[in-house]
Amino acid sequence: MRNWILPEYISDVLPLESRQLETMRRAMLDLYERYGYEQVEPPLVEYVESLLTQDDSALDLKTFKLVDELTGRQMGLRADITPQVARIDAHILNRQGVTRLSYAGSVVTTRPDGLLANRQPRQIGAEIYGCADIGADVEAIELMLASLELAGVKDVRLEIGHIGLFNAMADAAQWQSEIRQLAFNALQQKDLAVLQQLTQSLPDSLRDGFLALPLCYGGAEVLDRARTKLPALPAVSEALDVLNKLSAALITRGIQMRFDLAELPGSYYHTGLVFNAYATGFVSAVARGGRYDRVGEKFGRSRPATGFSLDLRSLTAIPFPAHRAAILAPQGDDAALLSAISALRASGQTVIVDLGVDVTEVHINRSLQLISGQWQVVPLQ
Amino acid sequence: MRNWILPEYISDVLPLESRQLETMRRAMLDLYERYGYEQVEPPLVEYVESLLTQDDSALDLKTFKLVDELTGRQMGLRADITPQVARIDAHILNRQGVTRLSYAGSVVTTRPDGLLANRQPRQIGAEIYGCADIGADVEAIELMLASLELAGVKDVRLEIGHIGLFNAMADAAQWQSEIRQLAFNALQQKDLAVLQQLTQSLPDSLRDGFLALPLCYGGAEVLDRARTKLPALPAVSEALDVLNKLSAALITRGIQMRFDLAELPGSYYHTGLVFNAYATGFVSAVARGGRYDRVGEKFGRSRPATGFSLDLRSLTAIPFPAHRAAILAPQGDDAALLSAISALRASGQTVIVDLGVDVTEVHINRSLQLISGQWQVVPLQ
Repeated sequence: MRNWILPEYISDVLPLESRQLETMRRAMLDLYERYGYEQVEPPLVEYVESLLTQDDSALDLKTFKLVDELTGRQMGLRADITPQVARIDAHILNRQGVTRLSYAGSVVTTRPDGLLANRQPRQIGAEIYGCADIGADVEAIELMLASLELAGVKDVRLEIGHIGLFNAMADAAQWQSEIRQLAFNALQQKDLAVLQQLTQSLPDSLRDGFLALPLCYGGAEVLDRARTKLPALPAVSEALDVLNKLSAALITRGIQMRFDLAELPGSYYHTGLVFNAYATGFVSAVARGGRYDRVGEKFGRSRPATGFSLDLRSLTAIPFPAHRAAILAPQGDDAALLSAISALRASGQTVIVDLGVDVTEVHINRSLQLISGQWQVVPLQ
Repeated sequence: MRNWILPEYISDVLPLESRQLETMRRAMLDLYERYGYEQVEPPLVEYVESLLTQDDSALDLKTFKLVDELTGRQMGLRADITPQVARIDAHILNRQGVTRLSYAGSVVTTRPDGLLANRQPRQIGAEIYGCADIGADVEAIELMLASLELAGVKDVRLEIGHIGLFNAMADAAQWQSEIRQLAFNALQQKDLAVLQQLTQSLPDSLRDGFLALPLCYGGAEVLDRARTKLPALPAVSEALDVLNKLSAALITRGIQMRFDLAELPGSYYHTGLVFNAYATGFVSAVARGGRYDRVGEKFGRSRPATGFSLDLRSLTAIPFPAHRAAILAPQGDDAALLSAISALRASGQTVIVDLGVDVTEVHINRSLQLISGQWQVVPLQ
């Protein structure tokens, strides 16, 4: 095995892609700051128990384990940042009011999440703790869409669901975790045959409800249809009320959406609203968000929470201006030359001292030359 | 063990420190860009063999190991970024000319590097490949000092050494790796007693040379003293010539330095010039740099290389402006309110929608109020 071969689904970020990542990252963090979000940076490794919010076996399997030599305890390399941010909200900041937090950092997963995926996504996101109001979800959706716009993602489609609908019916069916998971998977794959089989012994209203979920897809009319097709459980009408309120608030803000009541969250810890963004050219969602009330429970502080995240690296396929024009300057100790170079750099120009330059990726289009006793910038032929 | 307790020497970066890290990181990367450096981002994990440049047991011990489930092979969580950048220069970019690369990212070490250290330093640095000329070292030193200035580090002292002096004498003494390491450690600790013991059976000129090294400390006169005190080996005078040339180039640029010929590199892979920066209030060097020619040898491409790095996190003890002033706006669906908020954010202001706000760290000093039918920003009492 040669020393420069990287593991599968692990890759270097080279200069052009790095410029794009850095530009997107800064623009998004600045956006979140203008909304009052404060950035936090949880560590890459910590004890495994605190990297998982609940008994989340899917996240556990995705998490690399390593041994802490100082204590002999098992640590994990984080595969998700949200549980860490929940820990910070719960125990470190421990504020009473609404807390807005943002983050940007790498996570590492033991396996790729799909054929095209990278095992080191660059997760960026924003989260609101301590606010159960729909206003927090509206803000999270606004920020999610604005983030995608900053990245240059075109034709974004917002799809909204609510895991409370599925949970209410699964509770009414008294389903235990195994059959619950099978039904969840069947819904995720829109596999009606399996869903029919799993629900055949249920009372009519429940069975019809489960089978109606995948058909509840479309504009605001979907919510009316759901009120007639889904069983009249209190948690079902509560969830539909939330969806109606959200719909009205988004329409006021000129935000278009589609409802997909079989849209399921990407993570175990989601509890309510689910909002995912899709775009032409991308196989899976380009950004995912939703409610994860009670995410801090494990850390002893159960607060309402909502937010979204996306993988910056999945967005670098979008065209991006490649080069930054540079000036080539001769090497030397001449005081006038050195001060000309300093002044150009102070004005924001890139000046490359000619130690012998490879111009493959750094685009040099001018040079600094001594003309009639003055150092001047001259276009290159 | 409570779920929110972090491992020893591992800590969260909370909002105030994160603002400072982010500000320094951007300013330094922008500086490197103005010098023509291109950013690269090697992965956090890769096969252990490629994370180490040579048989570097110190770096190996510092590197967390984990198992790649896809192949069963051993991977490492990087404890240093320079070997990765050397791999990129050698195999991925593989350019013929001078290549300037920069990077900023976390590394993780199994043990803290000193009592105050963090096991997840934020390494940032810049490197020049393919140039043996002293001009490359001058540029690296300029950037190192400019980086510290951007971070607000005061009273920076530049100390310059050359590992070639020690190596030339150790070669002449025909020292094998064990005694070589003992002498290296003794020099590092300026432990003259141990050094005397190790060198007692050597010829006079060599012994005197080793014992003179820790005394060669001071201004440019040190180089003259070294020419008389150190043995007349070709590699010794070559190294002293390099130091003389560097001294002249730095003086031309108004950069002050001290020489410390017992100054030793922080990393196994350094081969020549060593330049470290010290500052009042910091126990160890605040930035370290030097020559690591041949660092890419293991990757099949041995090129000259020089550069520096520093740990951003070690610099956050420096005072930094804490708050960014924000405007509090009421929650609502009113079109005039929404557009007033958008306009303020577009102009760069932070506007926090009042979902119930905790003002502990986000400094709200104005509010958006409807006065005579107009949304206006009003100072808070």
